[in-house]
Amino acid sequence: MQAIIASTSTLHGSHYLEYLLPSLKLHFKDINEILFIPFARPGGMSHQDYTKLAAAGLKSCIPNVVGIHETEDMQQSILEAKAIFVGGGNTFLLVKQLHELNLMSALKTSIRKGAKYLGTSAGSNICGKSMQTTNDMPIVQPPSYETLGLLNFNINPHYLDVDSTSKHKGESRETRIKEFQVFNTEVVVGLREGSWIKINNSEISLEGTLPAVIFEPNKQVYELKSGSFLKF
Amino acid sequence: MQAIIASTSTLHGSHYLEYLLPSLKLHFKDINEILFIPFARPGGMSHQDYTKLAAAGLKSCIPNVVGIHETEDMQQSILEAKAIFVGGGNTFLLVKQLHELNLMSALKTSIRKGAKYLGTSAGSNICGKSMQTTNDMPIVQPPSYETLGLLNFNINPHYLDVDSTSKHKGESRETRIKEFQVFNTEVVVGLREGSWIKINNSEISLEGTLPAVIFEPNKQVYELKSGSFLKF
Repeated sequence: MQAIIASTSTLHGSHYLEYLLPSLKLHFKDINEILFIPFARPGGMSHQDYTKLAAAGLKSCIPNVVGIHETEDMQQSILEAKAIFVGGGNTFLLVKQLHELNLMSALKTSIRKGAKYLGTSAGSNICGKSMQTTNDMPIVQPPSYETLGLLNFNINPHYLDVDSTSKHKGESRETRIKEFQVFNTEVVVGLREGSWIKINNSEISLEGTLPAVIFEPNKQVYELKSGSFLKF
Repeated sequence: MQAIIASTSTLHGSHYLEYLLPSLKLHFKDINEILFIPFARPGGMSHQDYTKLAAAGLKSCIPNVVGIHETEDMQQSILEAKAIFVGGGNTFLLVKQLHELNLMSALKTSIRKGAKYLGTSAGSNICGKSMQTTNDMPIVQPPSYETLGLLNFNINPHYLDVDSTSKHKGESRETRIKEFQVFNTEVVVGLREGSWIKINNSEISLEGTLPAVIFEPNKQVYELKSGSFLKF
């Protein structure tokens, strides 16, 4: 397996995918065409326009970006793809469609047999065991929260540290993830903006500049530095 | 119907339920006992301790606070209660238990035939048509997102305004609610901290000091002042 699983598509003050380009050029070095899955986007932009955005972002790496909505047989196109990019948006919406269109297991099969994967935000969330550590609003109801399980842990993308100056009484991200672990045994990796996870066959490492925040059940929360292996 | 549906239980720098006490004293003026439903709390505090917290908060209004977990027949205790308080926590967890224990419709029946209701946060979220405008993490999967529908709209508690200075790229609350309305037709009322909704038979009004943020499908977002009726 070869995958780049990023907290976000866009860093503040930078273009779409820009901060990832040096890594994406290596990751996709022999790739001429990538299949783009725009299903997470809940509106404000058509599948077509989202695919154009992806194509613009990937222009310097990959000449052809094909939106899955343009293909005749979506399952087949996933199974035949040499590279796949699942963009961000709403994770509930993405997971609902992947399950209902029977694409979740095709995606898993294709990545496991070598399709080079890129995920951002919701597209990264689905690489964990379940989507249950998403930050998104349940705007639609998926039939199952189960996801690809390429990783043996869950991801919390866009991880936000506790703001001790805030007067808002909503739960902090840390509290929410600990509450998830009252009912679930998965390790959770909080990925700060600008961080990503790289899967290189059996090696899974943390990339980018910032440390990640690691939640193991019944353990003190701790941080792992960039370059560390994520092995639980 | 008589209900107080509050964005939060606790304002920054104030005690549990303190800011609501003047209204609660009127709301519960002939009530000697209230049934407390602690199911939203995902951990860190037992049902018993949560019930004690509720009792301490309500001490100056109601002498007896009974936790539903202590009752023999939970459905019956809901149907016989003269007053009911559903506390905050995680909305997914609360809704899952209310559905699985067959308490959702008992709750609706009881409130409709006169039990005086108090909800905070997750306990307020369930007064809308669905829980789909919650801010909570899907730490468990409820069989349905449907809720009490005492109101003919949805609530977004702990409403947060867009922070134009933030460099974080997660979606704003406004964006999330608009995305909800791409797939759903419900009006959404964003309740800022310290705001609550009062149901007094057929009159539904906004209380507290701050305006609420109103999302009607296909309309510009607008604000309603405290004291306004919420009629959509």
